[in-house]
Amino acid sequence: MNANVKSINLPEAVSATLNIDQQVFRQGMSNLGAAVNVITTAGLAGKAGFTASAVCSVTDTPPTLLVCLNRSASVFETFKSNQVLCVNTLSSSQKHLSNVFGGKTPMAERFEKGDWSTLVTGAPILEGALVSFDCEVVQSLSVGSHDVLFCHVKGMKQQAGEKALMYFNRAYCEPVPMV
Amino acid sequence: MNANVKSINLPEAVSATLNIDQQVFRQGMSNLGAAVNVITTAGLAGKAGFTASAVCSVTDTPPTLLVCLNRSASVFETFKSNQVLCVNTLSSSQKHLSNVFGGKTPMAERFEKGDWSTLVTGAPILEGALVSFDCEVVQSLSVGSHDVLFCHVKGMKQQAGEKALMYFNRAYCEPVPMV
Repeated sequence: MNANVKSINLPEAVSATLNIDQQVFRQGMSNLGAAVNVITTAGLAGKAGFTASAVCSVTDTPPTLLVCLNRSASVFETFKSNQVLCVNTLSSSQKHLSNVFGGKTPMAERFEKGDWSTLVTGAPILEGALVSFDCEVVQSLSVGSHDVLFCHVKGMKQQAGEKALMYFNRAYCEPVPMV
Repeated sequence: MNANVKSINLPEAVSATLNIDQQVFRQGMSNLGAAVNVITTAGLAGKAGFTASAVCSVTDTPPTLLVCLNRSASVFETFKSNQVLCVNTLSSSQKHLSNVFGGKTPMAERFEKGDWSTLVTGAPILEGALVSFDCEVVQSLSVGSHDVLFCHVKGMKQQAGEKALMYFNRAYCEPVPMV
């Protein structure tokens, strides 16, 4: 079977693929727009943070979200040990923090780039984030290279009137309401 | 402890909450913008589809995504039985399909509103979607009211050059690249 099918019956802009390798999957996923979040933790294992779009709501009974985290990430052991985290959903004016927490910047320097407080768990809450979900990690599941962390929301902070930061088609975007 | 803390030291637009009930959680989650997807299945248990934003990438090794589905949803048993599904990520020109598959429209009528094909698993693939991930469900986990379905991507179809449909702040949006 031909791995990459591009039928002559399909318009030029359309492609279908049956052999889904990492590159093809990532290309496909670039079409799934998502919010940009800085995920933080603090506790006996120390303080850490990273940028993630793989966050989603699971259920409101009880209020639960999930975060996907690569087990080979440098921050993994810190999160695993602390068992608390905060999902800070960035506003569009915080684009620089996405790069700081998504790159190779040393951990201490990352936190110097923003202003932080705490609410319930002690995980760092970012000033000016659209919303911060202060969470306890209650369950985790290993799936391939990643752990999926299921988190109960124990506190929340919101900032009204800010624009969102989204990542779509490998570019930072702002969502504009449709008329 | 006061359930809803609104400190006089915080600006008017900022609120912090320690008692996270369903309504507060949903309000917070409305700030987490997301793509809009029509999730479909077909098989021995029949054909079904629903609108969901709770979809995210888990790992590219192997290519895996997850979908959260309420166990009390009318479509739940059909998805559970078929063990295949397609995540069709809507373009902004397909906003009407979000409402059709997210409302009370009878199942047969829902599918009349779009054009469909199949790729690998037999789950319906929506014409004109930004991307369609044709998947086998390989694992599921019950978390509160929902099941989290972990899915291996077996086929993919993409449509270049379309605008995305996002849901943010309880409104449909289009992502516009930041300069």
